[in-house]
Amino acid sequence: MLKIAVIGAGTVGSSVINILQANKELILARAGVSIEPVLAVVKNINKKRKINTENIKLSTNIDDALNDPSIDLIVELIGGTNEAYTLIKKALGKGKAVVSANKALLAYHRYELQDLAKDTPFEYEAAVAGGIPIINALREGLSANNILSIKAILNGTCNFMLTKMLNEGIKYKEILKTAKDLGYAESDPSFDVGGFDAAHKLLILGSIAYGIDAKPEDILIEGIEDIRLADIEFAKEFNYSIKLLAIAKRKGDQVELRVHPALISKDEILSKVDGVMNAISVTGDISGETMYYGAGAGGDATASAVIANIIDIARKGKGSPMLGFNKPMHKLLSLMPKDEIETKYYLRLEVEDKAGTLAKIAQILGENKISIEKILQKPIANKKAQILLSTYTCVEKNIKKALKDLKLHSSLKASALMIRIES
Amino acid sequence: MLKIAVIGAGTVGSSVINILQANKELILARAGVSIEPVLAVVKNINKKRKINTENIKLSTNIDDALNDPSIDLIVELIGGTNEAYTLIKKALGKGKAVVSANKALLAYHRYELQDLAKDTPFEYEAAVAGGIPIINALREGLSANNILSIKAILNGTCNFMLTKMLNEGIKYKEILKTAKDLGYAESDPSFDVGGFDAAHKLLILGSIAYGIDAKPEDILIEGIEDIRLADIEFAKEFNYSIKLLAIAKRKGDQVELRVHPALISKDEILSKVDGVMNAISVTGDISGETMYYGAGAGGDATASAVIANIIDIARKGKGSPMLGFNKPMHKLLSLMPKDEIETKYYLRLEVEDKAGTLAKIAQILGENKISIEKILQKPIANKKAQILLSTYTCVEKNIKKALKDLKLHSSLKASALMIRIES
Repeated sequence: MLKIAVIGAGTVGSSVINILQANKELILARAGVSIEPVLAVVKNINKKRKINTENIKLSTNIDDALNDPSIDLIVELIGGTNEAYTLIKKALGKGKAVVSANKALLAYHRYELQDLAKDTPFEYEAAVAGGIPIINALREGLSANNILSIKAILNGTCNFMLTKMLNEGIKYKEILKTAKDLGYAESDPSFDVGGFDAAHKLLILGSIAYGIDAKPEDILIEGIEDIRLADIEFAKEFNYSIKLLAIAKRKGDQVELRVHPALISKDEILSKVDGVMNAISVTGDISGETMYYGAGAGGDATASAVIANIIDIARKGKGSPMLGFNKPMHKLLSLMPKDEIETKYYLRLEVEDKAGTLAKIAQILGENKISIEKILQKPIANKKAQILLSTYTCVEKNIKKALKDLKLHSSLKASALMIRIES
Repeated sequence: MLKIAVIGAGTVGSSVINILQANKELILARAGVSIEPVLAVVKNINKKRKINTENIKLSTNIDDALNDPSIDLIVELIGGTNEAYTLIKKALGKGKAVVSANKALLAYHRYELQDLAKDTPFEYEAAVAGGIPIINALREGLSANNILSIKAILNGTCNFMLTKMLNEGIKYKEILKTAKDLGYAESDPSFDVGGFDAAHKLLILGSIAYGIDAKPEDILIEGIEDIRLADIEFAKEFNYSIKLLAIAKRKGDQVELRVHPALISKDEILSKVDGVMNAISVTGDISGETMYYGAGAGGDATASAVIANIIDIARKGKGSPMLGFNKPMHKLLSLMPKDEIETKYYLRLEVEDKAGTLAKIAQILGENKISIEKILQKPIANKKAQILLSTYTCVEKNIKKALKDLKLHSSLKASALMIRIES
């Protein structure tokens, strides 16, 4: 059993505690040991929270976590650099593992923290791109590669705003107000729109790719504040999209680290990442380009990364079991029989081109509990008509039966093909 | 030092050996120990190969690998199920770690192999989606999630063909011939176009997500052979793309596992994956949708995954160092000064709207070694003109100097904004 203390129980901290409880059985099966959140340290103990506090102690004193020898792992979610640094230094000093989502702390102190940690586990997947396991991919999955470049969309607020400006022609000032109303942007949005949030994350990726120590003030950081619809026009005219990119690129023995708005070709997969989503494109000398896409923020997505780190630490030296589970799930899952699949379907029918044909088809489908959603009909060669249609969701065995009925029906002489519609 | 034997030195095996030698220094820095390919077992020892055989012994006898106690790890790249199964069983029996890229073997025998392996490392990242570290992401990165669904494009040949049919209206028979000519499809293409290749990979992902044991013959597998341009027409008409999808989806205590062509909305990020590329979209109950994109085949991309597994095994219990490097790289990289960045630039200029303005701008840019690529000019309010232009690649300090010159030039009274173009 691994006992953990969560320091800071805001949006992310609450998600971590709730998910450790909700997915307890799955996490046990994955980690091989039970993971118990036993203590949450908070500023205001009386504040209403969305967490089940039955099995967890609340405290306002960080020392309750640090001085309890039964606590194996500290989850640092207080943010900022000073208090968090002191906390983590003390925790590592007592041999407690640490999981942190603190990008600012790592942007400034990651190498000191690595020296402090030595062989004590310190993980931080959640610090970059929320629910996307990019640290994991870059550090383990691509470890054989010299990284040629990283191009990343790491700030969902900026990507949401730029997407709206490009797709809907909304002005910067208006879309910034919308972003604030939706809670995507802070009342002072400069940390996001100024590119600093993306820069903190880029410095972390830059270290894993290139082992390069740099601070935010060392690198080029520009925001999206000056982008106007005229720029959008130019981009559209010449098949560009505009994204706030965080770029790390190797040239000889030098590394470029920069965050700025950039025009990129609409043919690049990165240009197709819209709205609040994040994506990281990594080009390795062997792997070529790989891209990682997902939600870069939000309590649950971030908690997904925090808990993945906790599970890795819980597995200790053992690493992952070959097929992912240390022990079979308590509740075993079974394969669904092919005929019970439910989806929408597309049908291509070729039938006798005469009156009443469509009615007959609709009737046969209806008899098999299938309703038509969309339809295209046109005459083709030798008195045949081609009918292309999609259905609403129905059961596989019904569509199969309907296709049989259609083929067998004397007046239709139908040939039929079915393709499933996945939504 | 970790000594490895590579069994099968075809395209992938040769890449593995060459890259272990080419990226030796990087791999040492990542793994903390030197990784030496000492033996390659091949069918025909006299066949010409693209590998440097100076530091590696060639043999036709698998027992040379199995019976050499100094060999720590076996890389199985012979493919097929029988011979490979026997080889891996013997290797594990002798306590040798195994890395395999053999999807067919895992599709049929993964649970027996997990039982055989017990605590001996057995990794297989390369068996699914080549250079995309999806096993790693699904098994470690998303380990906190109940996986709601996996939707994946796992066969590059089919995706190449469907992309061409959809985007260029090429008929199935023609594009199949092209795929053969390009070497994307075998002379007997049925393993790819019939969906079996994707199915083998899906079964592996299904086990990691759901711990479910199933064989290819248990699941729904349909290929793309019957898709015609009429179906493409319908798809286009109703904003669908057509992809060969490998789908794993949980419904209650049952799991759907199926491979078939599917119409998917063009709004889904998966629909934007074109050509020979692979992509896996995973929806977790906490992370939401994350997607992983890259090259699914090819010697180097596959070798990237094989070597990542070898490095993980070399790290043994120690796991990854916090920032990715066990020891600093021999050659340390430095940060490139901001002014030395080279890229293309977009400029938005507002200038006096009078004769000769454009010539003057071109002259000032020219004096700073900047040439214009594209240009848009239009008059705006109060005798001003707006000039939007992009440049060819030039140096950051030159563009900064040019912007200064433009602003200072008395007759232009220019205001200027610059956005970088990333290509």
